[in-house]
Amino acid sequence: MPTPLQDNLVHRVNVGDTLTRTADRLPDKVAVVDGDRRITYRELDDWTDRLARGLVDRGYAPGDSLALASGNSAEFLAVYYACAKAGVVCVPLNLGWRPDEAGYVLGHAGVRGVVVETQLADWVGQALDGLDGVTDVVVAPGTGGPVPETLAGRTTVTTAAFEGAAGPVEELVEDRAPVTYLYTSGTTSAPKGVVGNHVAVVVESLTMALEARWTDDDRFVAMMPMFHTAQLNCFCTPAVILGATLVVHRGFDADRLLDTIESERITQVFGLPMMLRALTERPDIADRDLSTLRRACYAMAPMPESQLRRAIEVLGCELFLLFGQTEMSPTTTLFRPEHQLTHAGAVGTPTVSVRVALMGPDGERVAPGEEGEIVYRSPQALTGYLHDEAATEAAFAGGWFHSGDIGRFDDDGVLWFADRSKDVIKTGGENVASIEVERALYAADPRIAEVVAVGLPHERWTEAITAVVVAQPGAVIDEAELLAAVRTRLDGYKVPKAVVVLPDLPRTSTGKVQKNVLRQRLADHYAEGTR
Amino acid sequence: MPTPLQDNLVHRVNVGDTLTRTADRLPDKVAVVDGDRRITYRELDDWTDRLARGLVDRGYAPGDSLALASGNSAEFLAVYYACAKAGVVCVPLNLGWRPDEAGYVLGHAGVRGVVVETQLADWVGQALDGLDGVTDVVVAPGTGGPVPETLAGRTTVTTAAFEGAAGPVEELVEDRAPVTYLYTSGTTSAPKGVVGNHVAVVVESLTMALEARWTDDDRFVAMMPMFHTAQLNCFCTPAVILGATLVVHRGFDADRLLDTIESERITQVFGLPMMLRALTERPDIADRDLSTLRRACYAMAPMPESQLRRAIEVLGCELFLLFGQTEMSPTTTLFRPEHQLTHAGAVGTPTVSVRVALMGPDGERVAPGEEGEIVYRSPQALTGYLHDEAATEAAFAGGWFHSGDIGRFDDDGVLWFADRSKDVIKTGGENVASIEVERALYAADPRIAEVVAVGLPHERWTEAITAVVVAQPGAVIDEAELLAAVRTRLDGYKVPKAVVVLPDLPRTSTGKVQKNVLRQRLADHYAEGTR
Repeated sequence: MPTPLQDNLVHRVNVGDTLTRTADRLPDKVAVVDGDRRITYRELDDWTDRLARGLVDRGYAPGDSLALASGNSAEFLAVYYACAKAGVVCVPLNLGWRPDEAGYVLGHAGVRGVVVETQLADWVGQALDGLDGVTDVVVAPGTGGPVPETLAGRTTVTTAAFEGAAGPVEELVEDRAPVTYLYTSGTTSAPKGVVGNHVAVVVESLTMALEARWTDDDRFVAMMPMFHTAQLNCFCTPAVILGATLVVHRGFDADRLLDTIESERITQVFGLPMMLRALTERPDIADRDLSTLRRACYAMAPMPESQLRRAIEVLGCELFLLFGQTEMSPTTTLFRPEHQLTHAGAVGTPTVSVRVALMGPDGERVAPGEEGEIVYRSPQALTGYLHDEAATEAAFAGGWFHSGDIGRFDDDGVLWFADRSKDVIKTGGENVASIEVERALYAADPRIAEVVAVGLPHERWTEAITAVVVAQPGAVIDEAELLAAVRTRLDGYKVPKAVVVLPDLPRTSTGKVQKNVLRQRLADHYAEGTR
Repeated sequence: MPTPLQDNLVHRVNVGDTLTRTADRLPDKVAVVDGDRRITYRELDDWTDRLARGLVDRGYAPGDSLALASGNSAEFLAVYYACAKAGVVCVPLNLGWRPDEAGYVLGHAGVRGVVVETQLADWVGQALDGLDGVTDVVVAPGTGGPVPETLAGRTTVTTAAFEGAAGPVEELVEDRAPVTYLYTSGTTSAPKGVVGNHVAVVVESLTMALEARWTDDDRFVAMMPMFHTAQLNCFCTPAVILGATLVVHRGFDADRLLDTIESERITQVFGLPMMLRALTERPDIADRDLSTLRRACYAMAPMPESQLRRAIEVLGCELFLLFGQTEMSPTTTLFRPEHQLTHAGAVGTPTVSVRVALMGPDGERVAPGEEGEIVYRSPQALTGYLHDEAATEAAFAGGWFHSGDIGRFDDDGVLWFADRSKDVIKTGGENVASIEVERALYAADPRIAEVVAVGLPHERWTEAITAVVVAQPGAVIDEAELLAAVRTRLDGYKVPKAVVVLPDLPRTSTGKVQKNVLRQRLADHYAEGTR
């Protein structure tokens, strides 16, 4: 019989192996452009080998975990792939967290070490306070500050000094071994550690490449945070499998993005709807050469139809939306280019690797056309929640992953997201999906730049539907006029009781509007009985 | 914690689930056209559920195996997917085997039952002789003969009567559980049982769809035998994942194929080089409407450049070649459309899911540009050889799958197949790749329709290189003239010692030339010392 390691090496599924395969096929192709650095696939693969060797040399074994505190950079990708090769679980930290939140995650994930960019040293230093189990601190060159010699009392080492000898690392890493612990950003509760695995990531990445029809000729801007599953698994890992090129940006800057599209002949961009809108609003947009763009992808939330039309026209490319969640690695449906205008507001049709069903509270599938909780089966599903068997059991009830999203399939088989279960507003004995109210508001008044509907405590209605609005630049929203306009579009009980105009909305670091923060801030809105 | 079954259902990789997902997405799309029957994805999925229930009702448990003796048909696909859903291992029988060979496989695979088409009842009846472990005989409607009531002393049941109740079957089937035992056709030795598994087939199928750029709009003719990995896993399983349509033919008939291309608006055909050539030689080919064809795929062997040019011109579509082997599920490289004429004779570049390396007899990688044994690492690799740990250990030596093929990468990273290890001719102390000799012969004389080079026993040369030639229709091959022409193209020791002209070449049922049969037949060619 072959040894267990030989057996594993012949046919395992491993995220790190996908990089090695591409390096073999396309050694001189540029994998990553990060500032002035242009790193080929051969160079990236060799670099990750040396980093993986550094992990093994320091005694990291498959199943150990390493935190990664880094903005988008070549180092981020190198550490991620090095961990995969060594069987070490990578734990990217969300840079939007407070130090105590980051500290909670470092402790919960039981990391042995942390890789930190120079400009994040203070933040990580505070997070490390009291965490004696974290013994290794590795400092990556970042965007600012000197390399500290010690951090939270620990001697540091640079990423360059951390590297081991050249050559492949061959550890026994099982197909379903954990590859990441990605902590959900937690709009409501403490972050949960989503255990991702090699099969889930590789199947999702192949599926994304297939569904989005990407090739190794594609050139991506990676500007959404890599610590988030969408940038990491919908774009970075498929690009590496194909041998495409990733141009790294540390965040969104409309002018810089336009410069890069021109200079790097970018074919694919991915951002939030507001970022795509911001692009279309640049004063010099008509003078820009966007002819290389094939597709723009947006995530998290549908775009109002007027913005969609404008983006398609101005960017001169197809648009599509990704829908899913961290637990599904993450893409479950694609709102495809051909549906953008005919089904505006939907979240699309399932990918070939995800089964999507709708379930009632009784655990039975709902009748066609009815709303239900969106549940999934897919090789892409998480292994489980780390150290939380109860949450895993609840999420896997009946042999389906329960998303917590409410949705509906229309007659064309297109999925419409109704709401997060917890975003359903309970008003006067009725359940109202906040998204339905939001859609009506968008349609009622073009002066609205952004709107969310939340339920606020109310003596009579239990929760009073409330529209929280951001106006277009220079526009003024008239509450009475808006409510009158929306009244023609919604059943009476779904019409907001009030409109609150704010200069902007609170967001998580990945751009999701934090409805819980709004509900907290506006909790007393109806307290005086004034409405 | 979730139960093991719930856990499995949430995130398993299962070939049967790929059909269910497509049935959910595209219920009314036609999955299979078989004669007058047009079977939708919903119908096919429901049918396989009932067949899977039939297996469970009769006590089949995951890991049990069922043989399938069938030509290409809707039933073949239904039984295959039903087995996958129930965790039962499907053992398709090669219809080219003698009854005793089929009997060997039935016994070796330890099948509990066999599904047999009516016209194959006699053949299977003979194969079953003495195999008491095979208790169930299920008869499918075939192309001829009545349904027998007993077969080899066993009471039979029809596939329709075998079906259980409607509704999904939910068995615990592990990601790497066996899905098929595919017996290699064995040009030299007893067939070996290649244990394929769900991850291997699903990764290969996603990869094929991605690399070949197929979509659910594609319409395939399935005319190569489904019992062979190439038709089954390169075309049928990717088509089902995508939701494309398979039009089933029981074999190759040029005129019928052309009729079907026109009537079913076929976009993809797959056949042997000689089949594509036969199409181009039909007298009415110019009057045929082939405008729907996007690509023609050929397998097993490269096509001579003149045939390639003619096929591209006449069929009016792109051509590509698949290379690989049953053990790799099977595709490892694609000889892509853009390389067909610039690198004619090569076998292409690796797919994104297969790592290809070349190894010397010392187990070390060879230097760039040198020949070596083609070795693989990939999630697509077989689990192992059934009941043959020694063969598995030998094949997995050093943590690579050893293909037994000799190859070379050129400077463009394109792989050239040099030979099967055992097809290397050892002559006068030199090793000569038979394929190099064959290429020179093709180039030397356009009157050659087909040629193979084999080494035959020879007192002086150990093996004497011998050209076995089939002439173009109506053409006559002159031995002296051919040898003179080839002498200008090859080193002296590579020039054949003799030319043997035959009316045709012996082949396996999947179209591979049986060099071992030729070597046997011609073993005495040099025995008299006449040459």
